[in-house]
Amino acid sequence: MSNLQRHPIWKRHFKSAAALGDYSTRELSRRLGNDPISNLTQRQIRMVMIIRDHTESGRPGMLLKELAEKAEVSPSSASTMVNALVRKGILERRNCPEDRRAVRISLSGPLQSYLLASDQLLNEKLAGISSIIGEERMRCWSEVVDIIIRELETTR
Amino acid sequence: MSNLQRHPIWKRHFKSAAALGDYSTRELSRRLGNDPISNLTQRQIRMVMIIRDHTESGRPGMLLKELAEKAEVSPSSASTMVNALVRKGILERRNCPEDRRAVRISLSGPLQSYLLASDQLLNEKLAGISSIIGEERMRCWSEVVDIIIRELETTR
Repeated sequence: MSNLQRHPIWKRHFKSAAALGDYSTRELSRRLGNDPISNLTQRQIRMVMIIRDHTESGRPGMLLKELAEKAEVSPSSASTMVNALVRKGILERRNCPEDRRAVRISLSGPLQSYLLASDQLLNEKLAGISSIIGEERMRCWSEVVDIIIRELETTR
Repeated sequence: MSNLQRHPIWKRHFKSAAALGDYSTRELSRRLGNDPISNLTQRQIRMVMIIRDHTESGRPGMLLKELAEKAEVSPSSASTMVNALVRKGILERRNCPEDRRAVRISLSGPLQSYLLASDQLLNEKLAGISSIIGEERMRCWSEVVDIIIRELETTR
């Protein structure tokens, strides 16, 4: 603990996020023998998370144009990145029923199942840890992460 | 904010860590035209962080054996991963003065400079945000991340 305290808070924040991510990856790799995440690059994971955020509210897949805008890359880079992720079985492309030339990009079925399993695992783990953290600090933690997200979104 | 609140706390914790990481990557890429991190895989970043944690306390580079143990991979996988990262200019190998057959692995000079610049940027950013968070919540946040790190280390 004393060794940890010497590091700035944001570094320990990263470390705790990495510890949670590693826990899920390790556990699922043990249980399912499957680890679709560890060999993705940071950039690819960012793209997957954008598509996840977009589609989890029940909306259909993203158009390439929307994805490129959100990821702040050119449509042609976005297209190259999507191709690589489709080949890896991470993303899926489907033609739009409304417009046959348009294509919607979403997470593949296997990746969706993997992420659901990971969600469940982390919900359970957090339920355990939250009793140690306690109600007061849980509320405080929630406020802090929301402030960080909001502040970093507004300074873009 | 209301949209955020629907997500479990660990998901917003990841999101806030990713927002901080993206902020640093984007800013440094603007200022230095350099982004050595985004094309690394999760697995590679984990390895870089292990070496960083080991060497930042002033210790010499890591032996391959130590690195393999800490990363929970075989020495031969560790060696393959190190080779790839040396080729990318991320890691550096040096012969030990005490034992000519042994090799110590450390972060490359350019990566060290990059990470220092990133540290400085995030220290400044956090100094700004911490006034919004306030002293009480800063202390609380610090306690929470330490609990998470400790709990996940002990359940390995």
